[in-house]
Amino acid sequence: MLSTALITDLYELTMAQSYLESGKLGKAVFSLFVRKLPKNRNFLVSCGLETLLEYIEKFRFKDEELMYLKSLKIFKDSFLDYLREYEFRGSIYAIPEGRIVFQNEPIVQVEASLPDAQILETLVINVIHFQTLSASKAVRSYLVSKGKTLIDFGLRRAHMPEAGLYAARAGYIAGFEGSSNLLAGMKFGIPVFGTMAHSFVMVFDEEIDAFRAFARSFPDRTVLLVDTYDTLEGAKKAVKLMKEGIKIVGVRLDSGDIEELSKGVRKIFDTEGFKDVKIVVSGGVDEYDIQRWLSAGCPIDAFGVGTKFITSEDAPYLDIAYKLVEYEGKPKYKLSPGKETFPYKRQVIRHYAGEKMEYDQVVRYTEDGLVRLILHEGKLKKKLPTLLEIRETLMEELKSLPESLASLEKSEYTVKIEHIP
Amino acid sequence: MLSTALITDLYELTMAQSYLESGKLGKAVFSLFVRKLPKNRNFLVSCGLETLLEYIEKFRFKDEELMYLKSLKIFKDSFLDYLREYEFRGSIYAIPEGRIVFQNEPIVQVEASLPDAQILETLVINVIHFQTLSASKAVRSYLVSKGKTLIDFGLRRAHMPEAGLYAARAGYIAGFEGSSNLLAGMKFGIPVFGTMAHSFVMVFDEEIDAFRAFARSFPDRTVLLVDTYDTLEGAKKAVKLMKEGIKIVGVRLDSGDIEELSKGVRKIFDTEGFKDVKIVVSGGVDEYDIQRWLSAGCPIDAFGVGTKFITSEDAPYLDIAYKLVEYEGKPKYKLSPGKETFPYKRQVIRHYAGEKMEYDQVVRYTEDGLVRLILHEGKLKKKLPTLLEIRETLMEELKSLPESLASLEKSEYTVKIEHIP
Repeated sequence: MLSTALITDLYELTMAQSYLESGKLGKAVFSLFVRKLPKNRNFLVSCGLETLLEYIEKFRFKDEELMYLKSLKIFKDSFLDYLREYEFRGSIYAIPEGRIVFQNEPIVQVEASLPDAQILETLVINVIHFQTLSASKAVRSYLVSKGKTLIDFGLRRAHMPEAGLYAARAGYIAGFEGSSNLLAGMKFGIPVFGTMAHSFVMVFDEEIDAFRAFARSFPDRTVLLVDTYDTLEGAKKAVKLMKEGIKIVGVRLDSGDIEELSKGVRKIFDTEGFKDVKIVVSGGVDEYDIQRWLSAGCPIDAFGVGTKFITSEDAPYLDIAYKLVEYEGKPKYKLSPGKETFPYKRQVIRHYAGEKMEYDQVVRYTEDGLVRLILHEGKLKKKLPTLLEIRETLMEELKSLPESLASLEKSEYTVKIEHIP
Repeated sequence: MLSTALITDLYELTMAQSYLESGKLGKAVFSLFVRKLPKNRNFLVSCGLETLLEYIEKFRFKDEELMYLKSLKIFKDSFLDYLREYEFRGSIYAIPEGRIVFQNEPIVQVEASLPDAQILETLVINVIHFQTLSASKAVRSYLVSKGKTLIDFGLRRAHMPEAGLYAARAGYIAGFEGSSNLLAGMKFGIPVFGTMAHSFVMVFDEEIDAFRAFARSFPDRTVLLVDTYDTLEGAKKAVKLMKEGIKIVGVRLDSGDIEELSKGVRKIFDTEGFKDVKIVVSGGVDEYDIQRWLSAGCPIDAFGVGTKFITSEDAPYLDIAYKLVEYEGKPKYKLSPGKETFPYKRQVIRHYAGEKMEYDQVVRYTEDGLVRLILHEGKLKKKLPTLLEIRETLMEELKSLPESLASLEKSEYTVKIEHIP
């Protein structure tokens, strides 16, 4: 990857130059937190820290970036020299990936000299925001899926390929079994899944010829898309092939009345003795569909979850901010209406009633709590967890989630913020 | 940039292997179109073609990709050899960037051998979808902005940096003056804008000291953020500095009751004789806000349009598809409920009543119409337009847009699809 240094709003650099010129070089703490949860979210899943650290490592102003900045005729040479030497050597405190988090909890806190911490603002928000958004959306499908398989099919409608890649990562952390996205498979080792498209069926004169050709190419993993012309007829053709001894792992339904069709298809297979053939459903699927279909007893084995997941359609952004909370050890507050901030570096203490989470406290930073020191003066404190370990962290964490929060109905969790005078 | 070859759903490759094995190598035409416009869109702006061509050029399976694909144990060596040689040598017909388009109009049509055209599906949808989505959202702000300046402030909440970059491009095409995004400035030559954040103000003991420091660093381009503590008091401090002879270009308001505050701030400046100081407003701004504020006579000179633009918040995706419409010269239809397709390579003919667009016809392909041959057998037919030329195309095009479609109220445009037997 190229330098990430220009993934930056211009004002980060104008401020930094002015800090340097005004001698404002003291130690600052910035806190990344979500002010308020979207109306359809009862909690969030922290996600994106590993990616952020990779992007910060590549946050270096090379000749190309410096020449461009010089061409703007805004910056002084002394400041461009500062940028040339820039390398993040501060500390990062964060809630590790795969934890359940809430409003006003410091997901990431950056501690460094004021200009050094300031210029990372845009990057820190951007990277943590999107993966936290994606994991928080994906986990809702996971929570209502009753053990059924979920697969990310979203890449095509992701907001550019990079979003598709990192949403696949977030979805996997949040309980998806895999993704259709090959780059996510290569880069993160996420299991990849895929079947066929309507075009494949259409290119053969007869639907059954398409099925036969595909089964010949992939004898051990044939999943047939059966809704191109008529879903039940498509399922009957799958039966015909199986009776000829061809192995069919499953069928996919991508349109129509899924409740009626999934039951109809299941009945066709079961009547003929093919009880092991799986039914996969896709096509605009979200957590509300999954919950409704499973409640209605639809015999669906797997869901391809695409567009609505990958765009976080019902909440396409979080009200997330990166705010100065401490400078030279002194508290920093902002009083703008609706955007007040809480000063000081913070820790989050989670309280439990039995096995379930009861409420959180956001207190002045101490060592014990959800927030961990991740990067100490530019150096990683401890090897980061693997993707699988992060996923397991979340799976474990979900056991302590109160039922009300695990539901698609809105529910509030108490976060008590210690007011420090 | 690395290879783009794995920006691909697995099923594109399983299908391609099966096409090769089944001898399905005839000429295919795939069409990218939007089935139905989102409820808050009266039209779309075609966008992303240049990016798509760049990404297609880099769509090459290198050793790393091939090794990964081999490790999946799905593909035959003969197919991996096909991928190793893959280079797009087909043709692309497209509606150029910056044109107004509607449902069922073929934004991009790919003509190539069936497997060659199939495996580009995910990439084509992904790249054109996002920029068309972004331009179509941005132009709504442009249409209600009455000549006021619009600036993209969205990078931080974009769905990863790549989305921020290409949304900035799309926004610029759609009439924005520039962006806060430095990478967009470097890569596309888009003018960059920026001021200061609340953190800058908070780090000084007195707000006026922050203002003074910033003005000292940027004597010719000082825009002060005045809402950190009290907006009207902030504006009075700006006046105080101007009376000392310090030049202030403008102030930014990022919170509070914008109607009341913008009028209050304007009055403070005008009363003191500083009629040239601009007022910039940001903070969750969208086209509805802009229309409401300008209708209420708010004296706002520029809007920073951020999150709701860059996530296309009220319509975060388009119902876009890439469908096989023709194979070996024969029409291809799909009959899935709600997802019917229209066969054959197509042209779009636009009809006018006087200077205004009246209706479009989607007919069988001929040379004259909105659709142009862009890439002929892998070669660019004609130099692509510059970003500025695309922007001018759209500005010209908007003059022919019927008033009803230019409004934020829902309105329908007629697209007649020629049914070819």
